Amino acid sequence: MKELRYIESEVKKMLTPRRFEHSLGVRDTAVQLAVKYDANSDKAALAGLTHDCAKDLGYQEMMELVKKYNINLDEISRLEPSLIHGPLGACIAQDVFEIYDEEVLNAIRYHTTGRPSMTLLEKIIYLADYIEPHRDFPGVNKLRNVAKCDLDNAMILAFDNTITHVISLRGLLHPNTIFARNDLIVRLKPKE
Amino acid sequence: MKELRYIESEVKKMLTPRRFEHSLGVRDTAVQLAVKYDANSDKAALAGLTHDCAKDLGYQEMMELVKKYNINLDEISRLEPSLIHGPLGACIAQDVFEIYDEEVLNAIRYHTTGRPSMTLLEKIIYLADYIEPHRDFPGVNKLRNVAKCDLDNAMILAFDNTITHVISLRGLLHPNTIFARNDLIVRLKPKE
Repeated sequence: MKELRYIESEVKKMLTPRRFEHSLGVRDTAVQLAVKYDANSDKAALAGLTHDCAKDLGYQEMMELVKKYNINLDEISRLEPSLIHGPLGACIAQDVFEIYDEEVLNAIRYHTTGRPSMTLLEKIIYLADYIEPHRDFPGVNKLRNVAKCDLDNAMILAFDNTITHVISLRGLLHPNTIFARNDLIVRLKPKE
Repeated sequence: MKELRYIESEVKKMLTPRRFEHSLGVRDTAVQLAVKYDANSDKAALAGLTHDCAKDLGYQEMMELVKKYNINLDEISRLEPSLIHGPLGACIAQDVFEIYDEEVLNAIRYHTTGRPSMTLLEKIIYLADYIEPHRDFPGVNKLRNVAKCDLDNAMILAFDNTITHVISLRGLLHPNTIFARNDLIVRLKPKE
């Protein structure tokens, strides 16, 4: 892996100042959640710092990189290109930052849609992205409070929020978000 | 097919009085929508009348019939048995009422979840079930008005309503509902 200082300076160059501040917020929040839930703080910091590294690319550059990295876009990601920065970010993290840790790469890859059977680190990055200190939307404080004591219920709340937000925009719902939410609800259901 | 009078009397026996009234409401609303949107009124009436024929079965009887008809339940339907009455209703309609029209059977089969690429008759039954005169929920009048002039946008509105309702109950979202909604949104998007 490249040096952490180098990665941070590269991320800073790739992002708007605002997005870079957000990324530092996600990094710090992810570390807090990692400490709280016994995950690896270094991996949480690394995934948090780099999770949005593909988000400020232009459309053309993004599509060229999708081709270069041979990313197989699903139908919804083709129609909602804002979803591409997750899988593309994982490829850039590997290629440019030389991050080979699959846990970190998957946390980057799935941080926008989620997926069923998410790992602890994937949940931490998903949530940190949602609740880092710069975030401001109705319900964010409730989500912050739930995230402090119940990671899985915080995830369901975040998915619910995403789904209703996408509906309000008349946007397309990514199946992985639905499968991820169903998966958690089934896991949390009391056994009969 | 058995005589319509016989089918109606059998449906009446299979359902609670309230559900039977609902079924007559769906039948009549489906006929109105069929006239409006140039669908086959007889098929709309038949599918509307019979769509809920499996809904008042007890759990045990329902599961025995699922076995008898060799219905392949998906994971979500196994966990949310209220979804079973669609596919099971189609089997009963065929076996007991001797309805062999695949259009009618599919309108019964998919009236709860929807599915991508729905036919006109499937949309009519899905919506009639939502807006027949006995229905009363916030937004039903708006939905009735949209259904009068724009079938596809009414479908999206109905899907949105179902999704937010399921979320409010912390229920499982059926993938077909999500795929059906995405499918319609993509079809209605202005071409770039």
